[in-house]
Amino acid sequence: MPHSKIGHSDPDRPSRRSLLRGAAAIGGATLAGRAIGSASASSNLPPDVPEWMKTPGDPMGSQPYGSPSPFEKHVVKNIPKDLPQYLSASGRAPLQDLDGIITPNGLFYERHHAGVPAIDPAQHRLMLHGLVERPMIFTVDDIKRFPSTSRIHFLECSGNPGYQKPFGKTASDLVGLLSCAEWTGVSMKLVLEEAGLRPEAKWVIAEGADAVAMKRSIPIDKCLDDAMIVYSQNGERLRPQQGYPLRLILPGFEGNMNVKWLRRLHVTAEPVYSREETSKYTDLMPDGVAREFSFVMEAKSIILRPSGGQRLSGSGFHEISGIAWSGRGKIRRVDVSVDDGSSWQEAELQEPVLTRALTRFRLPWRWNGEPTVIQSRAIDETGYVQPTLAELIAVRGENFFYHNNAIWPWRIAVDGEVSNAANS
Amino acid sequence: MPHSKIGHSDPDRPSRRSLLRGAAAIGGATLAGRAIGSASASSNLPPDVPEWMKTPGDPMGSQPYGSPSPFEKHVVKNIPKDLPQYLSASGRAPLQDLDGIITPNGLFYERHHAGVPAIDPAQHRLMLHGLVERPMIFTVDDIKRFPSTSRIHFLECSGNPGYQKPFGKTASDLVGLLSCAEWTGVSMKLVLEEAGLRPEAKWVIAEGADAVAMKRSIPIDKCLDDAMIVYSQNGERLRPQQGYPLRLILPGFEGNMNVKWLRRLHVTAEPVYSREETSKYTDLMPDGVAREFSFVMEAKSIILRPSGGQRLSGSGFHEISGIAWSGRGKIRRVDVSVDDGSSWQEAELQEPVLTRALTRFRLPWRWNGEPTVIQSRAIDETGYVQPTLAELIAVRGENFFYHNNAIWPWRIAVDGEVSNAANS
Repeated sequence: MPHSKIGHSDPDRPSRRSLLRGAAAIGGATLAGRAIGSASASSNLPPDVPEWMKTPGDPMGSQPYGSPSPFEKHVVKNIPKDLPQYLSASGRAPLQDLDGIITPNGLFYERHHAGVPAIDPAQHRLMLHGLVERPMIFTVDDIKRFPSTSRIHFLECSGNPGYQKPFGKTASDLVGLLSCAEWTGVSMKLVLEEAGLRPEAKWVIAEGADAVAMKRSIPIDKCLDDAMIVYSQNGERLRPQQGYPLRLILPGFEGNMNVKWLRRLHVTAEPVYSREETSKYTDLMPDGVAREFSFVMEAKSIILRPSGGQRLSGSGFHEISGIAWSGRGKIRRVDVSVDDGSSWQEAELQEPVLTRALTRFRLPWRWNGEPTVIQSRAIDETGYVQPTLAELIAVRGENFFYHNNAIWPWRIAVDGEVSNAANS
Repeated sequence: MPHSKIGHSDPDRPSRRSLLRGAAAIGGATLAGRAIGSASASSNLPPDVPEWMKTPGDPMGSQPYGSPSPFEKHVVKNIPKDLPQYLSASGRAPLQDLDGIITPNGLFYERHHAGVPAIDPAQHRLMLHGLVERPMIFTVDDIKRFPSTSRIHFLECSGNPGYQKPFGKTASDLVGLLSCAEWTGVSMKLVLEEAGLRPEAKWVIAEGADAVAMKRSIPIDKCLDDAMIVYSQNGERLRPQQGYPLRLILPGFEGNMNVKWLRRLHVTAEPVYSREETSKYTDLMPDGVAREFSFVMEAKSIILRPSGGQRLSGSGFHEISGIAWSGRGKIRRVDVSVDDGSSWQEAELQEPVLTRALTRFRLPWRWNGEPTVIQSRAIDETGYVQPTLAELIAVRGENFFYHNNAIWPWRIAVDGEVSNAANS
C-alpha cells in the first residue's frame, strides 16, 4: 500500500498513519470525521435519511451518453477571455480539480488556430505522397483496418506556460495546456511502409484539415519510432477539439506538432519551415539567435494540491499531490520541498509509471500553520533535473516564450491561502 | 513494436508486415488505400479541398465541457427496452465500438435498482459504526482529506451475461455490463483504522443512498486488502450513475458489491443476508443448493472485432482484437482460435497488463473467405483457464444465472456477416 511504502522509504520520516494520528490529535474533526455518540452508533440508521432516498431517482435511459453531476458544473475548461479568437484560442484542463493521470475527454485541453472543423469522417481523406514509392490516399476505414496499438501518453503545448509575467494564479493557468489519455491508432511506421519510403526521405510534413491547414515538419526518425496516427482517445473516437477523425500523436513532442484533423503526409528531404516552426514555436536565445526545431518537452512537474487559488482548512495533515512528466521517457523521481527549497523529500510515485505519460506523485505532509513555500522537482530516466526559473533564465535569457519547464513554487500564507510564489 | 513482437513470437506465423503485403495483394485497395497517379502525387494538394477548410471552424468556448462528434451520436449506452424500469435497469457499454482498456465516463456501464439519486455532496454523509472503537460520520471533504491512491480496475456485473437464452447479438448485449476506469480515492483500510476495528469484526455491511438503500456484506479481509472508497473516475468526479459523490471499489468482486452513493459502513460479526445476497446474486447448483457469497469474477475474455452485428469487408488481412480480465489478478495469456476451436494461437497482450483491469489482446489474421468460428480463451496468473459453455454447464447445470464466464464464439458467414455462434 502507498502509505506503508512511504513509511518504509525513510525511517526518519513519520508514516502516513502516524501523520494521520498526529493530525487527529490536532485537527482531527476535519480529517477524520465527527465521532458520534454510542446511542446513535448502536442504531442501524444514520441520524438523517436524505430526501433522495425517499423516492426512486433518475430512471435508466435519461442519459444514453452520461454527463457529470450538476454539482460539478464549475469543473470546465479554463478558457482565457483576453485571447484573440481563432489564432490564439486555447482551453486549459482544470488540473487542480483532477485526480490520477487520465484526463477525461470532456476536460482535455484544446488549442487551435482556426477553430474546430466539423469533419464528416466518410468524406475525410489522408493523402501520403512525396518521396515514396507508391503515393496513396486513405479513408478513415483504411486507417482503422491496419494493426492497432494503444498507449497512454501526455500531450502538452510548448507554451505551457509561456515565459510571460504574471504567470497566472492557478495550476490550470500555469500548465493547463497539458492532458493525458489512452490513444489508439496505427503505428505511423506501418503506414509509411505501405507506401514505401525512398532513401532521400528525411522529413514528413503533416498537414491538418482546419482552415489554416496547420503544417509541421517531423523528422523521419520520429515517424519510424513511436509516432502514431490515432482515431481513439480514452476508448471512444477522438473529440472534434482533439482532431476527429484522425490526428498525429508524437509522444513527448510539443503539442502543436501532433497535427489534428490529419489530411496529408508529405514525405520530403527538407523541412517546410512553416509559420509554426519559424515565427512561432521557436526559442529566441540571449545571443539573438532563434533556436528552431526544439521538439521534445523536457521533464516537468507541478503540485496540484495544495495549489494556487486553494486554501488549507488548517494546520495538521495534508497530502501533497501533483503530476510529473517528461518527453524523454519515464519519470524516475520527484522531490518535494515544503520549506522554500531548503530541503527536499522524495515523493511516492503512483504505479504504473509509464513512458511519456503523466505520473502522479504524493507526499504526506503535516503543516505547522506557519507561512511557507512548497514546490516539486522532476527527474526523468535520462537523469535530467527540472530547473528552477532562475536556472532556466541563466541559460535562456528573458527573450524566450516557449518551453518553460521551470519549477513552480506555491506560497502558503498563515491563513492557509495558496498563491503563485513566482508572481511575488 | 507490437507487430515486430508478433513476428518474433512464433516463427511459423507470418508477421503483420507479411500479412499486410498478402492482404494488399488480395484486397489491398480496402486495406492500404488507393494508389494515386504521379501527376496528383507530385502536386502539393490532395485533389479535393473540403468545405471545412474554407472557413474557420467552431470557435473556442462553445463547449466548456466537450462532447463527441455529431457523427458519433450512434455510440451510446446499450439500454434494453424490455427490462422493468428501476428494479432491473441497466445500460451496457458499447464495447464493440471502443478501443484500448479505458472506458470513457460517458459510456461507462450502469446498473441500478431504484434509479439514480441526485445527491448534494455538501449534504452527503458516510457513517461508520458497529464493531469499532470510535463510530464516526464523514463528510465528502473528510474522505478527500485522507491519503489518496489511484488504480485502474475493471467493474463487471455478475449477470454479464446471465445464463439465459438467447444470449444476445452483439458483444455489448453479451458482456456490456463491463467497463474499466482509473479510480481515485482512499484505501478502505485507512478509514476503518481511523475508527478502530474490534477483534470480533468479520464483515462490513455497505449501504447506498439510493431509494432501495442497496446493502451488501463484504468480508473484512477484502476491506483490509485492496478495497477503496472512491470519489473520482478517469480524473473527474464520479458520474451520478457511478455513485456520485462516493462509492466502493472492491477490485475483482461482482459489480453489485461495489456499493454506489455510499452512505454507511456497518462493521459486524455476521453478514446481513440482504436481498442481493439471498434471492439475487446467488448461484443455484444442480443439487438444488444455492451457492452464496460467490464474490470473485473469474477469468473471461471476448473478441470485439470482429464481433456480432459487424461484417467483414472481404477476405484478406483483419486484426482480431478483444479484451480479457480476471478478478483474481493479471491476465497471463489469451489464446485465439480461428478454426472453430481446432487450434489455438497466442494473442499479443497490450502493455501495461494491470491487475484486475481489462487487458487488450490482438492477433493478426488473414481470412480466407470461408465460413468459420472465432473465439478467445483467457488464462489468468493463477493458471485458471476460461471454460467453454459446455464445460461450465457440466459443473453448474442449467439452473444458474450469474457468473457466466464461458468462452463466446462468433460465427463468420461466407458473406462476412458475424453472429453469435452460441445462439445457433
